[in-house]
Amino acid sequence: MDPPSAAFLLAESKNQPMHVGGLQLFEKPEDAGPDFVRELFDLAISSGDEVRPLFLKHPYRSVKTAGQLFWREDEQFDIEHHVRHNALPSPGRIRELLELCSRLHSTRLDWERPLWEAHLIEGLADGRVAMYTKIHHGLVDGISAMRLMQSTLSTNPDDRDMAAPWAKRPAPSRPKPEPETPMAEAARGLAGLPADALRTALGVTAEAAGMPGALIKTLSKGMRNETSTMSLHTPRTMFNRNITSARRFAAQDWPIERLRAIGKATGSTINDVVLAMCGGAIRTYLIEHDALPDAPLVAMVPIGLKAKESHLPSAEGGNAVGAVMARLGTDQADPADRLKAVQKSMKDGKDALKSLTPVQILAMSAIGQAPALLGPALKMQGIIRSPYNLIISNVPGPRSTHYWNGAKLVGNYPLSIPINGMALNITCTSYDGNMGFGLTGCRRTVPHLQRLLTFLDDEIGALEKAAGI
Amino acid sequence: MDPPSAAFLLAESKNQPMHVGGLQLFEKPEDAGPDFVRELFDLAISSGDEVRPLFLKHPYRSVKTAGQLFWREDEQFDIEHHVRHNALPSPGRIRELLELCSRLHSTRLDWERPLWEAHLIEGLADGRVAMYTKIHHGLVDGISAMRLMQSTLSTNPDDRDMAAPWAKRPAPSRPKPEPETPMAEAARGLAGLPADALRTALGVTAEAAGMPGALIKTLSKGMRNETSTMSLHTPRTMFNRNITSARRFAAQDWPIERLRAIGKATGSTINDVVLAMCGGAIRTYLIEHDALPDAPLVAMVPIGLKAKESHLPSAEGGNAVGAVMARLGTDQADPADRLKAVQKSMKDGKDALKSLTPVQILAMSAIGQAPALLGPALKMQGIIRSPYNLIISNVPGPRSTHYWNGAKLVGNYPLSIPINGMALNITCTSYDGNMGFGLTGCRRTVPHLQRLLTFLDDEIGALEKAAGI
Repeated sequence: MDPPSAAFLLAESKNQPMHVGGLQLFEKPEDAGPDFVRELFDLAISSGDEVRPLFLKHPYRSVKTAGQLFWREDEQFDIEHHVRHNALPSPGRIRELLELCSRLHSTRLDWERPLWEAHLIEGLADGRVAMYTKIHHGLVDGISAMRLMQSTLSTNPDDRDMAAPWAKRPAPSRPKPEPETPMAEAARGLAGLPADALRTALGVTAEAAGMPGALIKTLSKGMRNETSTMSLHTPRTMFNRNITSARRFAAQDWPIERLRAIGKATGSTINDVVLAMCGGAIRTYLIEHDALPDAPLVAMVPIGLKAKESHLPSAEGGNAVGAVMARLGTDQADPADRLKAVQKSMKDGKDALKSLTPVQILAMSAIGQAPALLGPALKMQGIIRSPYNLIISNVPGPRSTHYWNGAKLVGNYPLSIPINGMALNITCTSYDGNMGFGLTGCRRTVPHLQRLLTFLDDEIGALEKAAGI
Repeated sequence: MDPPSAAFLLAESKNQPMHVGGLQLFEKPEDAGPDFVRELFDLAISSGDEVRPLFLKHPYRSVKTAGQLFWREDEQFDIEHHVRHNALPSPGRIRELLELCSRLHSTRLDWERPLWEAHLIEGLADGRVAMYTKIHHGLVDGISAMRLMQSTLSTNPDDRDMAAPWAKRPAPSRPKPEPETPMAEAARGLAGLPADALRTALGVTAEAAGMPGALIKTLSKGMRNETSTMSLHTPRTMFNRNITSARRFAAQDWPIERLRAIGKATGSTINDVVLAMCGGAIRTYLIEHDALPDAPLVAMVPIGLKAKESHLPSAEGGNAVGAVMARLGTDQADPADRLKAVQKSMKDGKDALKSLTPVQILAMSAIGQAPALLGPALKMQGIIRSPYNLIISNVPGPRSTHYWNGAKLVGNYPLSIPINGMALNITCTSYDGNMGFGLTGCRRTVPHLQRLLTFLDDEIGALEKAAGI
């Protein structure tokens, strides 16, 4: 087992499960019969134990392995344990769906079985079908997991008898790769890098210092004092406390066109607008809880680096990932000022990234790839105060419409990993003209998390108004 | 916190959650509207945090408490975390219901919150409504838990606006206590004893030897060599292996009239017939898995003791509980022979119980009350081989029809605790003329557990035939 996988497994605890998730919403095809979901489920489990190796292995540790973790194939693989058929209670609103996903995301995966689950969910009042999937971060990172789920989708609405993402048998027709945008290209790096570079970065020092030590070393040597991308002057907030095992998930999407228009009118990127929306929503949330600190909150934002900036040979597996510490302008009452603060902070961070050496970039990438590990690593090293308050990721997804057995994918939302000291995570992903926001939090530490959706909606309106749209 | 509660909490692990459960099936009243279940759910959570103290406390341990476990009130009690609204996927058969209960019973309760959950389940094709409840054994034993759930039911089908079992507000009308049968009287002891006598029995030695030590001591001093109720010559079977965290639950009921007729024709008790049914079903199951040992399996059967036999003053809280080690006759091919073997074994065990001293009875009761603890205790003491292969309990329930907000209770099934080395548990309970069997097993160690239902049904038929009915 490679060091990052082991690290994710070892960082896991009852209150801190280390799996990522995805929620996909589908519209049934017009020719769907009354048993469409049941048939989809039967198709999904029809693979039996003919699943890809990734979906067959589970971690194993014993006296014989001297306590070291290894991967082992599950010889009693039981597809019905992993793929499940669920339903929502009436009235079958999105609220009931999010409540179910919150619960499904709360439970730990069983180490004695392969570390994934997929839940097909029926019962939405509008007739749509949902799929919630979870997979351990020790197997794949969140972005790869999402891509994996998408990999079996088709751009052809007429394809039927399509395999599930875990099945060995390939889907009858795969989507043609789209021409990549710069963002998508960078994002490919997010998934491509860890296989090689991350292992190198972590592996070298892991032997001497152990995995957590390696991470913290790359953090301190690479960046802490040398660049402005790392800030240790973050306020301590209600999000930065220990977490419990229950989760709350909330998700919604907004048209990218609206974000783009704000960006165009204010000279900012779509990502800046996403961050300003988050900053504004968090400000309102914290005011409502009488818990807004004077200093602005800082988000760790993984960003893709172009090949030139990353200094990495392309053979290494695509582009590298950097991490920018972005001030969210939560101290500013005016939405325009917040957006400006975000914009400046992101620009400073990106400039600083350019001055990094290849080794520093590699170190950065390790953190960008494994942000969920940084918290536990910092803790183990006795650094109680994290250099940021939460992680906000924005991962580009496919831009064209995709289908699964004729069912049209109409929504795609990531679920991520809250950790001790970092109880809220926001991950966004684009799909087919929309930006999907997935908010995952500790149910207790971030009460009424779903209120943030309302505040995000308020905030995009306020930004439009401020931009004169 | 008293020693038994602490022991149940400390025996808990990822693969061995220590909660008991109950599945209740209701028929909707004739005047039920389309939103009946939603209204029932709203009523169930309407208590808010006005719940009984038992449902508010959670275990707490810290440096301040010197590592000792204490109960503490949850100051952020969140009723919606504990009471949930679920639905079954189509086609909404009992199979889908059992699958959902299996999953709900697999997840551990969060120690940072009060240790219980209740799930209202809609979506059964026949229109019935189910309720699955779980509560930690550290709070109450299984029988008390079941009684607690029943305590808010009414014998009046016209009662409405009835409170949930956890609500502080009492139900508008409580059922009149039924005249107790000898079995029900004995069963009352099951619930009444632990509060006082069990604590005494365990408390005295717990100080010196620690909780597991106390249990094992009562076992060895009280019974092992002195009475025939304890047998250490049990075969090792596929059920007596380590378990994983996933559960499978199966349940079904049979008319008590059928059991009674077999008993009458053969001179055996209803409980003997229940045990013979289990023995026959387990025999078929083990043959199917090519895993039937030569020697007969032994079940630990908790039985109620009359006041005179128990030597306990009635002020101590009712009758005591004994444990009989019953041979299940799995080595006999003929159902009549199996029933005879069970009958003899139960008679011998009961005779031996009569010869016990009060202290020995107390020790017995400790085991009868906390059978799930015995396994871990034995293990901790290095006794690898358990004196029995599984626990089969038979707990009398109410004999008249009960209602909850007009919904008629039509089925009542207990879910119990598989432990390491004891992967299958059978608990039966009677209600309104039926005997409900609840089979709880480790999903991996006891594959296709639901097949046992078919075998139980075959067996009752075979016993009827053998008895000439």
